[in-house]
Amino acid sequence: MPTMARLGIIGGGQLALKLIDPAHRLGHHATILDPTSKCPASQVAECHVIAQFDDPSAIRELARWCDFLTIEIETVDATTLTALEKTGTIINPTGDTIAVLQDKYVQKSMLAASGVRTPRFSEVWALSDLQAAGEEYGYPFIAKARRGGYDGRGNAVVTSADHCRDVWDRFVGVPLMAEEYISFRAELATIVVRTSRDDLIVYPIVETQQQDNICHKVIAPAAIDPGIAREARTLALNAIRLLRGRGAFGVEMFLSTDNTVFLNEIAPRVHNSGHYTIEACQVSQFEQHIRAVTGMEPGTTVMHEPFAVMVNILGDRNGRAAPQGVEDALALEGVAVHIYGKRETKIARKMGHITVVGSDLNTVLALATEARRRITI
Amino acid sequence: MPTMARLGIIGGGQLALKLIDPAHRLGHHATILDPTSKCPASQVAECHVIAQFDDPSAIRELARWCDFLTIEIETVDATTLTALEKTGTIINPTGDTIAVLQDKYVQKSMLAASGVRTPRFSEVWALSDLQAAGEEYGYPFIAKARRGGYDGRGNAVVTSADHCRDVWDRFVGVPLMAEEYISFRAELATIVVRTSRDDLIVYPIVETQQQDNICHKVIAPAAIDPGIAREARTLALNAIRLLRGRGAFGVEMFLSTDNTVFLNEIAPRVHNSGHYTIEACQVSQFEQHIRAVTGMEPGTTVMHEPFAVMVNILGDRNGRAAPQGVEDALALEGVAVHIYGKRETKIARKMGHITVVGSDLNTVLALATEARRRITI
Repeated sequence: MPTMARLGIIGGGQLALKLIDPAHRLGHHATILDPTSKCPASQVAECHVIAQFDDPSAIRELARWCDFLTIEIETVDATTLTALEKTGTIINPTGDTIAVLQDKYVQKSMLAASGVRTPRFSEVWALSDLQAAGEEYGYPFIAKARRGGYDGRGNAVVTSADHCRDVWDRFVGVPLMAEEYISFRAELATIVVRTSRDDLIVYPIVETQQQDNICHKVIAPAAIDPGIAREARTLALNAIRLLRGRGAFGVEMFLSTDNTVFLNEIAPRVHNSGHYTIEACQVSQFEQHIRAVTGMEPGTTVMHEPFAVMVNILGDRNGRAAPQGVEDALALEGVAVHIYGKRETKIARKMGHITVVGSDLNTVLALATEARRRITI
Repeated sequence: MPTMARLGIIGGGQLALKLIDPAHRLGHHATILDPTSKCPASQVAECHVIAQFDDPSAIRELARWCDFLTIEIETVDATTLTALEKTGTIINPTGDTIAVLQDKYVQKSMLAASGVRTPRFSEVWALSDLQAAGEEYGYPFIAKARRGGYDGRGNAVVTSADHCRDVWDRFVGVPLMAEEYISFRAELATIVVRTSRDDLIVYPIVETQQQDNICHKVIAPAAIDPGIAREARTLALNAIRLLRGRGAFGVEMFLSTDNTVFLNEIAPRVHNSGHYTIEACQVSQFEQHIRAVTGMEPGTTVMHEPFAVMVNILGDRNGRAAPQGVEDALALEGVAVHIYGKRETKIARKMGHITVVGSDLNTVLALATEARRRITI
């Protein structure tokens, strides 16, 4: 049973910021590793190792300080994590799991090999591989950087055989994969948690709405047929069952126009699609992750409100952040605002989010939209 | 409209710890002033002025750093706060209000002069004043240090005329007051907030149960007749109406055996009796205070759960803190645990608290009691 554990988190963004709140509440101390001195979690971390996420000696230093290590970003040095595990450091999720998920082609290969339904995909090492993908999947299809992409960065929609060369030139030197484009009715997501006892628990299936490939809005639960929700739940659980390591995993899925659920991508960490759990669930994804990685029993994943809508507050300019209108948003009944304290805003940067809970989805949606409209940053 | 305001808090205990969470969420930065380097709020404050609460030059330094100043402890240097207000520093509650409340005799005189019902009370400057109080109020009555006492420290129950001398000798050199002992059915409390628009809003009336003069358990709402709850609410509002300055005020009351409500004491800050609002209300006393002192609109004070019970986790020995059993407590459905991160435990020191919410009071009470039983610290 952990008592006043020292928790190390690689990454100091908004996910670490939100992880540290329940960590404190449960009596733990938190140290982060992040290259930015004024990163969001630096506000609440007791210690801050200022270093790159993939700096092996800094990760080793963090490990020396901490009883438990975890991550809030997947672009870490997984090799060092695996080596540290061999010397007894408790790291969740494991270095191997992070390594498998870091490479989207390896991730999908692992999933497909075990029968988890994904869009069709293939390796791309030459322009001809892209062209072959186009022939096999039809146009449009997706070209993706295998590593390091997030929020749609590193993705390209290949629209025609002629377009293949442009895309190939754009990604020169970047290991690529090709993926079938799924014509979807909705994007779904959920949070699966491997608990400290290695059981899997799962939050409700939500709908995520993207704008320019960035999560913009989350509707919990997704307004889908219960049978489809069950199918998505099973798919997500089957996927995470293949991975080692405890804690929260964000699972993104497509619901195709013909009502088939495909697994899109797994993040080995808490996830934007689970922010609504702070207000809508008794135990949030963040607390659940902290419990799992520090050896504590899990809590319920049930929503205590019928509906929740989360809207991201994305930057719409580049420059010094200056949140305005937070109080106007709060003047709307039932609106919670989370500002992450980032000093600089950038176009499409996640600067905060809004959550609204309630018993009528249309009201909740309208309040969330109006609250978002009232805030500039 | 405040944007990324710098908030200064005098005091760095658990109340400051819990104030900083919503401060961050609303986009603000927090600096604390506290003599203890590892105080609870030092975990989450961005800057920490290490100084005594009544150190004028340190308070001035804090004011230079901050857009808004507030307190989490009332034993501050109120004179310096009043002087700073005259130079334009925005301080809530005001220095004058803190000064009036710091002296319990002055506090009660102010309340009684405006017709707020309190127990009878009198000044004590000599042993004969104590003896006169005994004759007037009968025995037992209460002798109280006028300043600095909290959690029952500085209080004595005077049981007989002979006992007066013992009490007098014990408090030699300490300015005292005498107070009628109210034979009470229950102790009640509430949080009243003066908003940024100078309106008063009030949380539900709760019952507080003390052990050895320290708040041990809070039951929200208090199981009392609605008419009595209305009377308590009016009494609390009438009391706070007499004070200047924005933010949360903790109001403690007695419900006498003949069903009369008396005002006991006001704290010019968030209060232990309002901790349940974190889980039971959409906007906690802490967020409400932050909104009020940074110029934001208030939120609702309504409970979204029928019942809440808060139990303090008090130290039962002196030494290094070692929380045990937190996960066993969390294994109970609906239990939230808050550990404050204090390095040292002491007998009767507030080390954390437990909140349980639900729709059946007996279940909630039983869960809270069992959760508390499972934790040692």
